Amino acid sequence: PQVGDSWATVAANSGPPPPQHQGGGERTNIYVRSFFFPSEDSFNQLANALKSAKHSIDLAIYSFTDNDLSKIITNAHRNGIKVRIISEDDQVGKMGNDIEFLRDEASAPNESLMHNKFCIVDKRFVITGSYNWSKAARRQNQENILITNSPEAVQSYCREFNKLWKQF
Amino acid sequence: PQVGDSWATVAANSGPPPPQHQGGGERTNIYVRSFFFPSEDSFNQLANALKSAKHSIDLAIYSFTDNDLSKIITNAHRNGIKVRIISEDDQVGKMGNDIEFLRDEASAPNESLMHNKFCIVDKRFVITGSYNWSKAARRQNQENILITNSPEAVQSYCREFNKLWKQF
Ligand SMILES: [Zn+2]
Ligand SMILES: [Zn+2]
Repeated sequence: PQVGDSWATVAANSGPPPPQHQGGGERTNIYVRSFFFPSEDSFNQLANALKSAKHSIDLAIYSFTDNDLSKIITNAHRNGIKVRIISEDDQVGKMGNDIEFLRDEASAPNESLMHNKFCIVDKRFVITGSYNWSKAARRQNQENILITNSPEAVQSYCREFNKLWKQF
Repeated sequence: PQVGDSWATVAANSGPPPPQHQGGGERTNIYVRSFFFPSEDSFNQLANALKSAKHSIDLAIYSFTDNDLSKIITNAHRNGIKVRIISEDDQVGKMGNDIEFLRDEASAPNESLMHNKFCIVDKRFVITGSYNWSKAARRQNQENILITNSPEAVQSYCREFNKLWKQF
C-alpha cells in the first residue's frame, strides 16, 4: 500500500479487514497479508510496501539481484532513510557508496547460509517468506511473502536482525 | 480502521496486539509467532505445531530431507490425517505408500522452481518463511518461520495451495 491509499483501497487488495472494535483505546488494526509469485501484482505490493518507508529499512536477504528493488532501496537511502542490509549476495555491495551492508562470507560447501528473506520497514511492519529479491523469484518461481504489522512479529524480527547484524 | 482512513493513519495507529475477548463470536485471539534458526527450540516449536494436526496437512516445500519431520508427517498420515505435499524434492516420493505427493519436474536451469516453504495445518494455521525442511536449514543456516492463525492468511495460503495442486 502507498501512503495516501484509502483503507478501502488497501483492504480491497488484500482480503477482509480485521474485526472492528470501537473505542476503549483498543488497537485492533493488525493485519496479516499474503502475496504469491510469480505475479507483477504481488511484486507491486512489495515495491509499494518498501516505498512507504519513512525512517528505516532493515533487510536480511539471501539473494538480491532485482534492479527495481535495488533502485527503491537506493532511493530510500538517498532520501535519508536508514538502510541496513545483510545478504549472501555480493551484488549488494555495488548498490551505493554508504549503504550499511554486511555480507556473509560463507561460501564453501557445508557452511551456514544467511538464508533469511525478511525486511522490517520503520519497525512498523515486517515482510517475510520464501521470496528472494531476484528476477527468478519475481518472474518464474512459485513463491510467497507475508506482510504483517503484528507487534510481536515486528519486535521479534527486529531482535533477530540486530542479533545477525552483530554476528556478521 | 474506518473506511476512508489513510494508510498513514492506519499504520500510525498500529501497536501492540489486541486484547483478548471471550465469547461474543469475536475472533480476537489471532496470533503471529516467529521462530529463528538454527535452533533446536525453534525446531521443536515447528515439530509440535505439526504434531497438533487433527485433520489435514497441506505442505508446499522446496526441499524436504529432514527425517524427523518426515516421520511426523508419515505418522500423521498413518493416523488418518489427510496429507498433501508439493515439493521439488524427490526424496518425498519415498516417504510412504500413498501420501498424496506431487513433484515439480522442472530441473533444467532457468526453469521455474516451486520455491515455497509453507504448510497449512487443519486449515487452522499456516507456517511460512525461509525454512526448508532440511538438515542444513535446521542445523546451520540463518532461517525464520512465522506461524499464524490469521483467517485471511490461512484462507489465502489454502487458495494458493489448491491452485498449485491443480497446476503440478
Ligand atoms: Zn548511509
Ligand atoms: Zn493416503
